[in-house]
Amino acid sequence: MASSQGIIKVNLESAFDKISEYWTPKIIGELNQQHVKIVKCHNSFTWHSHENEDELFLVIKGRLKMEFRSHSEFLGPGEMIIVPRGVEHCPQTDDEAFVLLFEPAGTVNTGDNPGDLTHPNPKWI
Amino acid sequence: MASSQGIIKVNLESAFDKISEYWTPKIIGELNQQHVKIVKCHNSFTWHSHENEDELFLVIKGRLKMEFRSHSEFLGPGEMIIVPRGVEHCPQTDDEAFVLLFEPAGTVNTGDNPGDLTHPNPKWI
Repeated sequence: MASSQGIIKVNLESAFDKISEYWTPKIIGELNQQHVKIVKCHNSFTWHSHENEDELFLVIKGRLKMEFRSHSEFLGPGEMIIVPRGVEHCPQTDDEAFVLLFEPAGTVNTGDNPGDLTHPNPKWI
Repeated sequence: MASSQGIIKVNLESAFDKISEYWTPKIIGELNQQHVKIVKCHNSFTWHSHENEDELFLVIKGRLKMEFRSHSEFLGPGEMIIVPRGVEHCPQTDDEAFVLLFEPAGTVNTGDNPGDLTHPNPKWI
């Protein structure tokens, strides 16, 4: 919700309620040329990296497994991980998970590995 | 917690457990020249604005009142607000609140109104 002076206020639960598709990020905020996005995750995403963008994943609900080539990290609600640019990663979940993302505006979800899951121009909700 | 390849993983509850002072932001992550910080809030902060930085506040626990010159916004857990650069604001709480901040590296908490609550060089935890 944007109000006067460009102030943006968002209730995350209400925002997630507006999403039905998995692995389809939606923008909920913009600041300092960065986007705040939310995404519902289920099953496996795709291996990829981002050449010029670091990415933050904060789990809001459910559990997220972040696979790297060297190891995996497991995250639950209230846990975040920062994946530096250039590091290959593959998000996965057994069940549905709700995740908040912080990343530069223009970041494409599948990075250097475009395919069926690519959403180059995420929409605001 | 930083691991190989610069990956940073943080459990927010554990991170907040390490903070005892109010209104003293600590850095828990860095990406794309932005800092992720956490701060425990209680009572009133100070009116200020930031000339060149937009700020995001995400409430993790408790309730936060964000006063603006024109109105106030009230936020509970799972709610976030983005305060654009140049907009005067004053965070307040009745009881203790835990807040996650996302803002450019180098942002000083009291902006254009330095004083007793200023912490120009927040530490990593």
